[in-house]
Amino acid sequence: MTYCRTIHFSDTDAAGVVYFAALLSICHEAYENALQVAGIDLKTFFKSSNIAIPIIHADIDFYQPLFCGDHIQINLTPIQSNETEFEINYQIFYENNLDKLIAKAITKHVSINPKIRKRSPLPSSIIRWLQSSRENK
Amino acid sequence: MTYCRTIHFSDTDAAGVVYFAALLSICHEAYENALQVAGIDLKTFFKSSNIAIPIIHADIDFYQPLFCGDHIQINLTPIQSNETEFEINYQIFYENNLDKLIAKAITKHVSINPKIRKRSPLPSSIIRWLQSSRENK
Amino acid sequence: MTYCRTIHFSDTDAAGVVYFAALLSICHEAYENALQVAGIDLKTFFKSSNIAIPIIHADIDFYQPLFCGDHIQINLTPIQSNETEFEINYQIFYENNLDKLIAKAITKHVSINPKIRKRSPLPSSIIRWLQSSRENK
Amino acid sequence: MTYCRTIHFSDTDAAGVVYFAALLSICHEAYENALQVAGIDLKTFFKSSNIAIPIIHADIDFYQPLFCGDHIQINLTPIQSNETEFEINYQIFYENNLDKLIAKAITKHVSINPKIRKRSPLPSSIIRWLQSSRENK
Repeated sequence: MTYCRTIHFSDTDAAGVVYFAALLSICHEAYENALQVAGIDLKTFFKSSNIAIPIIHADIDFYQPLFCGDHIQINLTPIQSNETEFEINYQIFYENNLDKLIAKAITKHVSINPKIRKRSPLPSSIIRWLQSSRENK
Repeated sequence: MTYCRTIHFSDTDAAGVVYFAALLSICHEAYENALQVAGIDLKTFFKSSNIAIPIIHADIDFYQPLFCGDHIQINLTPIQSNETEFEINYQIFYENNLDKLIAKAITKHVSINPKIRKRSPLPSSIIRWLQSSRENK
Repeated sequence: MTYCRTIHFSDTDAAGVVYFAALLSICHEAYENALQVAGIDLKTFFKSSNIAIPIIHADIDFYQPLFCGDHIQINLTPIQSNETEFEINYQIFYENNLDKLIAKAITKHVSINPKIRKRSPLPSSIIRWLQSSRENK
Repeated sequence: MTYCRTIHFSDTDAAGVVYFAALLSICHEAYENALQVAGIDLKTFFKSSNIAIPIIHADIDFYQPLFCGDHIQINLTPIQSNETEFEINYQIFYENNLDKLIAKAITKHVSINPKIRKRSPLPSSIIRWLQSSRENK
């Protein structure tokens, strides 16, 4: 699964490059895009009162600076960890140069019942998305 | 000039809809996109030490809430006000329904010499963009 | 009512100054702070399923650029417009120089029933806050 | 070194809690605050054309959700790694409950010459800050 994006002025900071936390937000956009392509309705998915899938961990490594107007491509690989958890690996490239890694990131997601904040099995729509992602690799 | 965009999770707030100031950022993306389409290099444009074009005014009116995953279209109309100033009008619609206005916004931009922070004539690249926008209407 | 704030790195953009929409977010912080001082619980206020008070209009004028590390003070004046609506005026200064206005902004807020998205009288906690703000002027 | 902060509405997302990347931004504010307390001028520090100190790595673990209006405290511990690099550890608590960790994060920073993007020794102001942080522990 890939996601393409132009770097916006609002992504940058006074050092002239993309603000570090903004690139994690852009990775999250790639995740949202993958869910939407899989037919998942984002509005209900992120507001569900029965199941929430918060991020419990994120990390990112930066190899190159990014500037306003740069065109990037994110390659996203989701992996199911167990029945309540999955992680997503992101590789960030310039859109026209997949040889040089700009950054890489990971987010870990856990399915919970938001009323009691206890772990709960991943919803079937997410299981299907994780399986189809594995098959399409 | 039009710009299409999906509403991201990071654009939303705890009320479940797009955070008010985020929609102004999305309008600015439409402006950046229009500049890039006109051949202007955003990296140098926004960091130039000779000319800066800060926003001196912005306003926005909201008619409908926007949710994560919504597909919107922004129609952008730039107008030169005088030799140092231009404004941009933005109309925000759902991508598949141009009958119903979701929001409208204005940004006003003034060309200055950033070293002395005095007004300075708009650069020729911007004048050309403003003229071609008028002709393409 | 005043609110003091240091400009963060994340508020800035590649032009080296505060990103225009970020200053509206900072004005909203001043509003949140005023509500909290008035004893309103922000968590329930902004997530209530019975009453929502979305922003229907915002505008801002910029007179001076702001840089990372600048200490600012916002003077906030809320005014009730009618039984469903109020507006807030914001004046933004450097913390140690109240003679020179950096920016001024307005936000307009309307009370609605979020289920049917129709106007609904302002909640009594907000009416009390608006009245006490008028008396303390 | 500690930094206190109220959670803003703009930090939250449609799931009703703080957006994951926003908490990394709040950690960065704690870093900025520590530099400012140490007498470092943030405006010149983050825009210097001779030395830049970009973040090369960040990670964060979330244990509890945060809501609009929550008062948090960040305990920050900077550690020099070698002559060109330092890292900062952040522990995020509720302001009135230092027994329960809400989240913890790390950022890694490397000193470079931004013109050639090669490593360069940490500036003396940062070395002094790192040393005084160690002594004050």
